[in-house]
Amino acid sequence: MSNILALDTSTDACSAALLLDGRILQRFKVEPRRHTHLLLPMVEELLVEAQISLKALDAIAFGRGPGSFAGIRIATGAAQGLALAADLPVVPVSTLEAMAFAADESAGDYLLTALDARMDEVYWCAWQRKGQALHLLVEEQVSAPADMQLPAAVSGNVFAALGSGWCYRGRMPATLTAVINGYTTDVYPQAEAMARLAAAAVARGEVMTPDDAQPVYLRDQVAWKKKDQQ
Amino acid sequence: MSNILALDTSTDACSAALLLDGRILQRFKVEPRRHTHLLLPMVEELLVEAQISLKALDAIAFGRGPGSFAGIRIATGAAQGLALAADLPVVPVSTLEAMAFAADESAGDYLLTALDARMDEVYWCAWQRKGQALHLLVEEQVSAPADMQLPAAVSGNVFAALGSGWCYRGRMPATLTAVINGYTTDVYPQAEAMARLAAAAVARGEVMTPDDAQPVYLRDQVAWKKKDQQ
Repeated sequence: MSNILALDTSTDACSAALLLDGRILQRFKVEPRRHTHLLLPMVEELLVEAQISLKALDAIAFGRGPGSFAGIRIATGAAQGLALAADLPVVPVSTLEAMAFAADESAGDYLLTALDARMDEVYWCAWQRKGQALHLLVEEQVSAPADMQLPAAVSGNVFAALGSGWCYRGRMPATLTAVINGYTTDVYPQAEAMARLAAAAVARGEVMTPDDAQPVYLRDQVAWKKKDQQ
Repeated sequence: MSNILALDTSTDACSAALLLDGRILQRFKVEPRRHTHLLLPMVEELLVEAQISLKALDAIAFGRGPGSFAGIRIATGAAQGLALAADLPVVPVSTLEAMAFAADESAGDYLLTALDARMDEVYWCAWQRKGQALHLLVEEQVSAPADMQLPAAVSGNVFAALGSGWCYRGRMPATLTAVINGYTTDVYPQAEAMARLAAAAVARGEVMTPDDAQPVYLRDQVAWKKKDQQ
């Protein structure tokens, strides 16, 4: 079992988690705009509590998006810096996958995860749980709520909808909402799930060097640049 | 003399510099939107070229702003991560001060540094060189070009104007432009100047822990949140 430090600042929530011999320690706070203040103290607290040094870990995981562009960059920068300095590989983890992974068993095996992408759009994708594994049914994408639709091959299933993106369900097509049996909008991607997903990735050898670890924005860069305030 | 690694991603330029026994190694590239790709490889190259480990340094400096919100966060995150992992203090450095510090001697002793703040605004301040030191004459602020003015106490001097903010000089008050004897708009804040400024800060004991190292945005958070796309 791998020992992993995971960081996430991709939404209004900020979290850090340490997975050690299968045991999880996590810090989690919802404080928008405070992530650069919160993240490092969380990491330090976890390392002190576990009495472990970074060098003793196997990898550093981080929420690579989709989510807040500015937020994703904080976790990416911190993970890159920590990993480079401690000579560790990194594991970028999808925020949408982390939400699906953390879903309660009662949610069933078919999951739709979505995050508010602002600018009247939603980041979303669809998953099928198969035991401990998550199988991607519909690729991660950014859509206007009115344009969200499931391919015919999967729309025969009943889905649980998770994440802030479902606040816009009133503007989604009836063909989509007809196959959803419940909404949980107040869930965030969390570092705990990312640490566990990263441990599985490490076991499969899916790690990378810090410089190769990059954010995944989904929204195309041209549109983003145009609308970006800075 | 302190040994310093400095990082800057606060504008369209990305740079990293290593100050070792008074000697500077720097990497510098102007590639907007590529900073998360460029920064870490630059750091690694410098460390390899100098055959030094992070642990052998005295501090990590970074461009703390003002500048691109998203950009500042990358350098902040990376500096925090590197410093925490290598157990080093950090030194946040003003981008406006770094530009003034790097100004050619021919610019004279009175300097106005300004960066394009987008949204029709400019980040700016005024400096007086006294030997190797920079004395702040007018505090860092964000203004509409039309609102930029110097206090009467300093407007009797002749200033050199440096930085992208001066592209808007056509919209600045004549009372301001009347005391400027030259414009250099194509200069960026650079890590080299930050490393040298940080060395002086280290000598004065002005270092902080990674968690205390924070961006300086200048623009107020309410206005920023409203306009921020994410």
